[in-house]
Amino acid sequence: MTLVDRVMLGDRLALARLLTLVENDTKDGREALSLLYPRTGQAHLIGVTGAPGTGKSSLVNRLALHYRAEKARVAIAAVDPSSPYTGGAVLGDRVRMKDLAGDEGVFIRSMASRGALGGLSQATAAIVQIFDAAGYDIVFVETVGAGQGEVDIARLAHTTLVVEAPGLGDDIQAIKAGILEIADILVVNKADRPGAENTEKALRSVLELAHTPVTADRHHGRTMNVAAPAGSSGGTWLTPIQRTVALDGQGIPELAAKISEHRAYLMSSGHWRDREQSRISSQVEGILQQALMAQFHAALPKRRYNEIMQRVFDKHLSPSEAVDLLVSAAAVSDASVPPSVTSEGRASRGRRPQ
Amino acid sequence: MTLVDRVMLGDRLALARLLTLVENDTKDGREALSLLYPRTGQAHLIGVTGAPGTGKSSLVNRLALHYRAEKARVAIAAVDPSSPYTGGAVLGDRVRMKDLAGDEGVFIRSMASRGALGGLSQATAAIVQIFDAAGYDIVFVETVGAGQGEVDIARLAHTTLVVEAPGLGDDIQAIKAGILEIADILVVNKADRPGAENTEKALRSVLELAHTPVTADRHHGRTMNVAAPAGSSGGTWLTPIQRTVALDGQGIPELAAKISEHRAYLMSSGHWRDREQSRISSQVEGILQQALMAQFHAALPKRRYNEIMQRVFDKHLSPSEAVDLLVSAAAVSDASVPPSVTSEGRASRGRRPQ
Repeated sequence: MTLVDRVMLGDRLALARLLTLVENDTKDGREALSLLYPRTGQAHLIGVTGAPGTGKSSLVNRLALHYRAEKARVAIAAVDPSSPYTGGAVLGDRVRMKDLAGDEGVFIRSMASRGALGGLSQATAAIVQIFDAAGYDIVFVETVGAGQGEVDIARLAHTTLVVEAPGLGDDIQAIKAGILEIADILVVNKADRPGAENTEKALRSVLELAHTPVTADRHHGRTMNVAAPAGSSGGTWLTPIQRTVALDGQGIPELAAKISEHRAYLMSSGHWRDREQSRISSQVEGILQQALMAQFHAALPKRRYNEIMQRVFDKHLSPSEAVDLLVSAAAVSDASVPPSVTSEGRASRGRRPQ
Repeated sequence: MTLVDRVMLGDRLALARLLTLVENDTKDGREALSLLYPRTGQAHLIGVTGAPGTGKSSLVNRLALHYRAEKARVAIAAVDPSSPYTGGAVLGDRVRMKDLAGDEGVFIRSMASRGALGGLSQATAAIVQIFDAAGYDIVFVETVGAGQGEVDIARLAHTTLVVEAPGLGDDIQAIKAGILEIADILVVNKADRPGAENTEKALRSVLELAHTPVTADRHHGRTMNVAAPAGSSGGTWLTPIQRTVALDGQGIPELAAKISEHRAYLMSSGHWRDREQSRISSQVEGILQQALMAQFHAALPKRRYNEIMQRVFDKHLSPSEAVDLLVSAAAVSDASVPPSVTSEGRASRGRRPQ
C-alpha cells in the first residue's frame, strides 16, 4: 500500500511521514501532493496570529477542544518562523500535548522556518493541503509573532483571527494598524486581566480611525470595515471583536460562533472561492519561482556563475548588471543545447561581457 | 546635474527622491543603484530587531545621538513589515523627530512592506546601499517585530542587535532560542525596570543551554557561542549581553563600545568580507528571481497562463503539474522567437497538455 493510501485510511504514522516528505520538498512529497490535490478544498482553514504573549496556543487548544466536542476532526500547523535554525518543538507544544494527547481526531504539527525566503509559507501551504485531503475539517495555522512572514502565512487561511491581550508594551499600537487589516475576527484574549476594556476600546478606535465603511474589496476579496457588534451585514463583513479567556474557556463558544458566521459569509458572498483561488495562485507562483531558478542554475555552469559573482564582489559589476549578464549567459548556454552537452566552453562562446 | 550627483553632494531632497525611486524599483532607481554601487562597502550596517515593546526605536535614537557626538554620519532605515497596506510613518518616528530633527548628519527613512514576498528585504538592501554610497558611516536597519521577515532583514547587517526587555509576556521564552542565534550583541533595554536581572539570567541560560562553545561558523560566517562577559576571545565572538536604559542613555556608551569591538572582530577574522559577500549574493539572487519571473511572463501569453490556472482551480491539475506545464509552455513560446513575434498562436503550437 502506498503512503498516500495509508494516509487516506487514517494512518497517523503515515501522515507524519508524509508531512516530513512534503516539508522537505522531496520528490516523493511533491508526487503525493499532486495525487492528493484533487481531494482538497473541503477544510475550513483558520489562521491565528498575534504578538508573543497573547496566548495564541492556549486559544487554539480551546477552540480545538470545542470543535472536537462537535466531532469535527482538527489539525493544527504551528508555525514558528522566529526559529530559523533550531527547529524542534516550541514551548506551547508541551501545554498542548496535555490537553489534546491521545485524541485520534486531532493532529498537531510544529514547523520551523525552511530557511529560504518564502519557503516556510510554501511548506505551510503544502502541509495544509495534506491535512485537508486527509479529511481534517478544521485546520488551524498558528503563527508565532506578527511580522510580514506571519501575515503572509495568515493569508493562507479562509478566516484569520488576530489575537491581542491587555498590557503588552507601549509601541504595540504602532503595529496594530497593519496587522488589523488582515483580521477577519479580532480576539482580546486574557480578558480577565486589568486593561481588557481599554484594549478593546483601542482596537475599536483603530478600526474606526483607519476605515470608514467600504463595500469594495481591497485585497484578495477581503473587506476592511469599521468595528461592529458582530458578524456580517448585507454584502460586507464587519470585523467583530470577541473577548476570551483561553485558560478557562470563557468566550470560546461565542468565538466559534463568529468563525461559523464568517464561513457562512464567505460562502454566500463568493469570497470563499476568491480566497481559495488567490491562495492557489500564490502557491503556483512560489513553485514556479523555484522551478525557474532551478532551470537557470541547470543552464549556467557554476563556474561561470561564480566568475560573475566575483566581479560583483569586486564592485566591477552592480547586482542588477550582474543579473542581466547571468540571464543572457544562461540563455546562451541553454539555447538548443541538451542539458548534458551544456558546458563551460559552450557557455563562454555566448555574449562576452566587458 | 543628475539626481545621483546631487545625492553625492549631500542634497537631502535628492536623497529622499532617490530612495523613493529605489523603493519603488523603478528603472531610474535601478540605474542610480548601479552607478552608486562601486561606492558602497564603507558603512557599518547595524541591524536592530526584537519584539514590540522592547524600546528599539528609542535605543536606535540614543545610539544615533552617540555616533553624532563622534561626528559620524548616521542613517536609519526603519522597517515595519507588519504594515502591509497602510505604509506611512510609524509611531516611533514622532519620538525620533524630536531628538534628531534639524541635524543634517542624520537621515531617517521609514519603510512599510512592498507587498511581494521578499520585496521588503530587497528594497531595504537597496536603500542601505544608497545610504552607504552617500557617505553615511553608520546605517541602522531597525525592524519592528521578530518574525522570519525581520530575521531576514537583520541578516543584511554586519552587526545585529537583538533587543529584549523585562516583563514582556510569558511565551516570549519560546521565541528566544531562534532569534538569539542571529544576535551578535544582546541588549536588555528598560534595564531599570523590575525583572531586568531575570531577563538577563534567562538570556544567559538560553545561550548556555543552546550552545557549547563552537569554533566553526554555522551560517554566513556567524558564530554562536556561550554567553561571556564581553567581546571577542581568540578567533570566536562571544555574544555579549548589554543592559541599557534608552530613555536616559544608561549603557549606551558601553553598547557602542561593544559594537566597535564587533566591527574590529569582523575585520580581523575576515567575517566582514564574508558577510558582505553573503549579503550581495542574496541581493543578486533576489533580483535574478524577479528577472526570471519577468522573462517567464513576457514569454507566456497571459491567456495561456490563465487557462492553466483555471485547470488548477478546477482540480484537474495540481500546482506542481501546472508549473511543469507553464515552464514548458513558456520555453516553447520563447524559443528563437523575438519577443514581439511571440503570440498566443505560436504558444499553442507547443507541447499540448492533456
